[in-house]
Amino acid sequence: MDFNHSAQAERYIAEVGAFVREEVEPREHEFLAAVAKDPWAVPPMIDELKAKAKSAGLWNLFIPKEIGRGPGLTNLEYAPLAEIMGRLNWASEVFNCNAPDTGNMEVLLRYGSPEQQERWLEPLLEGEIRSAFGMTEPQVASSDATNMEATAVVDGDEIVLNGRKWWSTGIGHPDCEVIIFMGLTDPDADAHRRHSMVLVPVDAPGVKVERMLTVFGYDEAPYGHAEVSYTDVRVPLENVIAGPGRGFEIAQGRLGPGRIHHCMRTIGLAERALEFGCRRGLERSAFGKPLVDLGGNRERVAEARLALEQARLLVLRAAWLIDTKGVKGARTEVSAIKAVVPKMALSVIDTAMQLHGAAGLSGDFPLAESYAWCRALRFIDGPDEVHLGVVARHELKRHEGSRA
Amino acid sequence: MDFNHSAQAERYIAEVGAFVREEVEPREHEFLAAVAKDPWAVPPMIDELKAKAKSAGLWNLFIPKEIGRGPGLTNLEYAPLAEIMGRLNWASEVFNCNAPDTGNMEVLLRYGSPEQQERWLEPLLEGEIRSAFGMTEPQVASSDATNMEATAVVDGDEIVLNGRKWWSTGIGHPDCEVIIFMGLTDPDADAHRRHSMVLVPVDAPGVKVERMLTVFGYDEAPYGHAEVSYTDVRVPLENVIAGPGRGFEIAQGRLGPGRIHHCMRTIGLAERALEFGCRRGLERSAFGKPLVDLGGNRERVAEARLALEQARLLVLRAAWLIDTKGVKGARTEVSAIKAVVPKMALSVIDTAMQLHGAAGLSGDFPLAESYAWCRALRFIDGPDEVHLGVVARHELKRHEGSRA
Amino acid sequence: MDFNHSAQAERYIAEVGAFVREEVEPREHEFLAAVAKDPWAVPPMIDELKAKAKSAGLWNLFIPKEIGRGPGLTNLEYAPLAEIMGRLNWASEVFNCNAPDTGNMEVLLRYGSPEQQERWLEPLLEGEIRSAFGMTEPQVASSDATNMEATAVVDGDEIVLNGRKWWSTGIGHPDCEVIIFMGLTDPDADAHRRHSMVLVPVDAPGVKVERMLTVFGYDEAPYGHAEVSYTDVRVPLENVIAGPGRGFEIAQGRLGPGRIHHCMRTIGLAERALEFGCRRGLERSAFGKPLVDLGGNRERVAEARLALEQARLLVLRAAWLIDTKGVKGARTEVSAIKAVVPKMALSVIDTAMQLHGAAGLSGDFPLAESYAWCRALRFIDGPDEVHLGVVARHELKRHEGSRA
Amino acid sequence: MDFNHSAQAERYIAEVGAFVREEVEPREHEFLAAVAKDPWAVPPMIDELKAKAKSAGLWNLFIPKEIGRGPGLTNLEYAPLAEIMGRLNWASEVFNCNAPDTGNMEVLLRYGSPEQQERWLEPLLEGEIRSAFGMTEPQVASSDATNMEATAVVDGDEIVLNGRKWWSTGIGHPDCEVIIFMGLTDPDADAHRRHSMVLVPVDAPGVKVERMLTVFGYDEAPYGHAEVSYTDVRVPLENVIAGPGRGFEIAQGRLGPGRIHHCMRTIGLAERALEFGCRRGLERSAFGKPLVDLGGNRERVAEARLALEQARLLVLRAAWLIDTKGVKGARTEVSAIKAVVPKMALSVIDTAMQLHGAAGLSGDFPLAESYAWCRALRFIDGPDEVHLGVVARHELKRHEGSRA
Repeated sequence: MDFNHSAQAERYIAEVGAFVREEVEPREHEFLAAVAKDPWAVPPMIDELKAKAKSAGLWNLFIPKEIGRGPGLTNLEYAPLAEIMGRLNWASEVFNCNAPDTGNMEVLLRYGSPEQQERWLEPLLEGEIRSAFGMTEPQVASSDATNMEATAVVDGDEIVLNGRKWWSTGIGHPDCEVIIFMGLTDPDADAHRRHSMVLVPVDAPGVKVERMLTVFGYDEAPYGHAEVSYTDVRVPLENVIAGPGRGFEIAQGRLGPGRIHHCMRTIGLAERALEFGCRRGLERSAFGKPLVDLGGNRERVAEARLALEQARLLVLRAAWLIDTKGVKGARTEVSAIKAVVPKMALSVIDTAMQLHGAAGLSGDFPLAESYAWCRALRFIDGPDEVHLGVVARHELKRHEGSRA
Repeated sequence: MDFNHSAQAERYIAEVGAFVREEVEPREHEFLAAVAKDPWAVPPMIDELKAKAKSAGLWNLFIPKEIGRGPGLTNLEYAPLAEIMGRLNWASEVFNCNAPDTGNMEVLLRYGSPEQQERWLEPLLEGEIRSAFGMTEPQVASSDATNMEATAVVDGDEIVLNGRKWWSTGIGHPDCEVIIFMGLTDPDADAHRRHSMVLVPVDAPGVKVERMLTVFGYDEAPYGHAEVSYTDVRVPLENVIAGPGRGFEIAQGRLGPGRIHHCMRTIGLAERALEFGCRRGLERSAFGKPLVDLGGNRERVAEARLALEQARLLVLRAAWLIDTKGVKGARTEVSAIKAVVPKMALSVIDTAMQLHGAAGLSGDFPLAESYAWCRALRFIDGPDEVHLGVVARHELKRHEGSRA
Repeated sequence: MDFNHSAQAERYIAEVGAFVREEVEPREHEFLAAVAKDPWAVPPMIDELKAKAKSAGLWNLFIPKEIGRGPGLTNLEYAPLAEIMGRLNWASEVFNCNAPDTGNMEVLLRYGSPEQQERWLEPLLEGEIRSAFGMTEPQVASSDATNMEATAVVDGDEIVLNGRKWWSTGIGHPDCEVIIFMGLTDPDADAHRRHSMVLVPVDAPGVKVERMLTVFGYDEAPYGHAEVSYTDVRVPLENVIAGPGRGFEIAQGRLGPGRIHHCMRTIGLAERALEFGCRRGLERSAFGKPLVDLGGNRERVAEARLALEQARLLVLRAAWLIDTKGVKGARTEVSAIKAVVPKMALSVIDTAMQLHGAAGLSGDFPLAESYAWCRALRFIDGPDEVHLGVVARHELKRHEGSRA
Repeated sequence: MDFNHSAQAERYIAEVGAFVREEVEPREHEFLAAVAKDPWAVPPMIDELKAKAKSAGLWNLFIPKEIGRGPGLTNLEYAPLAEIMGRLNWASEVFNCNAPDTGNMEVLLRYGSPEQQERWLEPLLEGEIRSAFGMTEPQVASSDATNMEATAVVDGDEIVLNGRKWWSTGIGHPDCEVIIFMGLTDPDADAHRRHSMVLVPVDAPGVKVERMLTVFGYDEAPYGHAEVSYTDVRVPLENVIAGPGRGFEIAQGRLGPGRIHHCMRTIGLAERALEFGCRRGLERSAFGKPLVDLGGNRERVAEARLALEQARLLVLRAAWLIDTKGVKGARTEVSAIKAVVPKMALSVIDTAMQLHGAAGLSGDFPLAESYAWCRALRFIDGPDEVHLGVVARHELKRHEGSRA
């Protein structure tokens, strides 16, 4: 057992850390001002930063070692980098490591046909276009995937999509060109062979962005979350990833690393929130003392630290399990981190907000928006309850002999 | 001991309840659509509803019995009405019972000169104008009132205001005409005689709305929260309420009933959230069961009910204490409710949001915005920590003989 | 709505309060020393105190007004007295208000035949004998009453009891003479007509105290909890209360007031724990400050106060509901208090223990034993989960129309 | 980063695991019965098991690699073994790894003179005698070590001890022969040079065991916790460990590994409690379902697993830090685990108890006694609050520049 990061990871930690500290964080207000002015455009500074990161080799770091095309990091080595990028919710894009592009790229790397790769993967890897993912639906409880109502019906050499998806993140981005749509293809097939994943150009006839959604009042421009209707959308059968009926299989493989990324980014967000909280708590005084020395504030700071350290170790171990046992072998542990990290982060950010007074809820600090994001993460990729259920099932299985 | 409301309260509960249920709640989407279209205007439906409520005698219900001018309810009788109005964050205005106008009117009723009353109070009582309150400051921890930096300096027959206030709620409203500004008048006076409360027309020279603030991502139009600068603002000495140096005294008296109102409104918001949660949990199914029957959901619904009932009783008792012992005699109990209710509501709303899936965070339901408001209430009128401190001090005082 | 106790209640509060403060609390160490020396005997001081309380008219206060035989208090009036007696776990006996005698007496008052009343009720009312209750069983989950395995089979003019009961509280007491035993009489009857309650002399042939149980290491002498086997125990049919098949009906009626009593006594225990905590926290110092001023201790003291006040109000309202709507009409609210109060008390006592350092876990303070009792109360008269289920069911029933 | 244990650790995990599973756990009832019969004697089975463990080389495993005399394990390698031994509170003795002997042996290994080592260390290492530690005092808040009142005054070639210590664990054991006593030697010396650690034979004149203490109701025989008075106890100056004035220095070094041990043992206790909880929850049914499928029970099982995994990783990392950076370099992290683990274990055990119904509080299961031990651990080696304070101080130090 060794708690040191590998030499390669340490090198990237230093480089990505320095980049975020020196190039990204100082430009936070510039970014926010640009987005406030023109929400659904990409501030030019983003392209500038992307070029810089790319030329520094800090690009596509997320691509798992065994796939190639990236710098060859394991999930365990990428995890601390995701944490650093996660400190600001727009920093990942600078390194071409933003979701859902990361998951989409990984899917195309693993399952994409050469044609799909050429058309969609290459520009994604270059950071020239962006993508979305159409999974969750407004009319049903999407925590149970068998509730999915959207259809992807094969018709000759085409596949026809119908239905309504929402929380399709990133569609607001002007560079978003493609959606990976998931729909029911064969209701009579075996439960895990019913669905297909289909590449749909954003501008395909019948695709309509009905509206942009808010999360706690935030539109999260320039990425945004959309409700999208699909009405008799026809795309060539070649756009189906790995062929009809393999949607679930692909989704499963995608979710392991994706949840590691989400969790580590969230830890980065929480770490930054705690830094803000400590600083504010030291800077401001009331009743003759720095805020941090009043009431239970020091205990809350300590509890935040304890929660953060524990959660990070749990995620790192899950990443290591994916690397050593595969996504399937790490399934329970991946559910575990998904159930732990967002709640932990909410609690840490809440402490930080409280130390800021009402300012913490305003746009003057990134805290409230971070809170909104972490609250959403209690649903994204499955609600807490589903993940707790996975963990409980695994726990109880060890004692099956005791069943009455 | 008797847990029945008085006959008078019961009558108003029935009437206000029916009004909210039949006239207000059904028009929620209309209101939201109007505000989305033109945020800083008052939707005409509001004027329509106000006229209806006024003609039904459901107007200025908040005015404490002993003051006159209202229907003559005690704090205990008004409390359940505040709860009902609080179900929607814009319903109180319909009954001319919205904050901070309620507190401002009460101050003017108790301390206002005949001239002040004629100029400001009468149109407020009629619902013709609205008002704001300038207390909290951006540069200091306002939880400690002695940190206040804004000044209100007497200069002949004028008083000169300088400083910066924020979270001045309601300034965005087109009808807002006056601000009650609090500032330091005499730094050498006894600690509770240093500050003054001054009536300032919104359009007085030197008053500048620097920007509107958001709470989470909400601008809370058409009310809004503003940061306002005061630069050499000169108003006649007659605009000082009750004369220079009485700011603290007035603030203290104002806060008791105001906190009852806030807490009861918040309980109404939480009740409505729980209703939404139960309905959604019954309507939607996953894994073959209504959501509410999965995992710990029923327990969470029950915990929400237990927390609501307890909190409501605590607030009602505090209202009764104000009625029977006065604001000062109820001070600890008022701090108690302020420390209890917002956190309780946040927990209840969080349960409701979780039962909604990601929809609960969107604008399709009032949950996330309610959450944002309740989170803000953990600061408004004093942060939790200050109120817990008041409760602890009172508790320990009973055992002073034990001090080492 | 009125939060004042009735004049009659206030008078008893003063009298019982003075008695406990002046006669009972000062003799705590004497009681503990006597029990330590001779656990299963009644310390003579108890008889002395009982005589004093009886002659002062502070006797059988628990008997509900409508039954007669007591001083005629409502549940709401008795509640604060139960709280005061509950401050010490042995004080209720002094006033002949200890469980399970109170419940047993109430059952006999309501359902007992004249012969049963003469033989058992009268000496119980006089405090000459004590009684136990045989309900819970070791082999099954007793939270579900239909699991009950013990039998009470009618055989001519006798009823024959077989089975094993445990947590029969009070059997260790030398004056315990009778057990109310509950068993299955007619498995084919309607679900609520299957069981009988039977009066069984402790020394009936076939009744065997198998062992005394501990709760967290405490034997709770001289009352104690026993595991008792019943082997072909034959008692006359006249010993069946209200006749065979009425066990459930009687149990239901018994539980409402009984839970009020338990909850109020527990609140008294928690109040006393908080007093101990405050005193210790003021008396002892570390790092140059009284303990109570370190870290989050003041906040925890305040949180304890908030929790206590809320829980008490909830119980008082449930008592009022029983008085005004009957046990059945108050069912949800009685479940509510049972789910709230023990957990609240555990939290308050835990805070008090922590303020005492390790001493708080020792026999030098009543805290750890109080904690053990409150932990047991999370099972006694139904586990938390069952009561939360009752509350949830009631809450959801209001929205049945929403069911998918 | 690698989450696999070393090969050496894995081998011991297998061997100690098999021993505990096959030799120790099956004899739990035999041990409890023996102690119930004759509390302050050592059941013969213990000597038998000790001999077996010793001959299997599972002996003194705790001794850190760099000291020699043991099998040469690092703290990180020993940690999982402590967890396994910790499953039963009396299992560590079987492997001569019980506290406070472990800490005392380590102190003598590091600081003992050859004479001290020959007289006390050798028989301790052989498991022939046992020892106690006299630190905490009844009259002061011992969380602040500067409160210590006991004295150890040099008088010629003797040192004279006076004072009163309590929670001296292990004195009840018939083999306990020596106490390490800590007292104030030179009040004028530098703060960390004032105290001495002195080896005192249990039967030295003036040493008096005043009474045995209980934790909750447990006497924890045959080890026990005592209050001990020291009245003019004279021992040779050679009995001072490392010479007068070095008490604090020795205490500091002792506490790092000791807290790792305590925390890992506690994790073992919690793991076993969770196993009990799962089994009971599957075995017993109510309302037609296994208990574990009712209400929020599965979520609580999952939460227990999440908490356990996180806490274990935190402790393992702290052990690794001690191995790689020394006790001083790991100070914050050691405080962190001490603040996390006992509370985590209490929560896990509480869940397990609740799944057992009232049986979980009785002596039929080890749960309540485990709970009592973990509750005590919130004080042993420093209360939670002190450790949270250490963590907070370290956290805030990173932001010192922000101080107002």
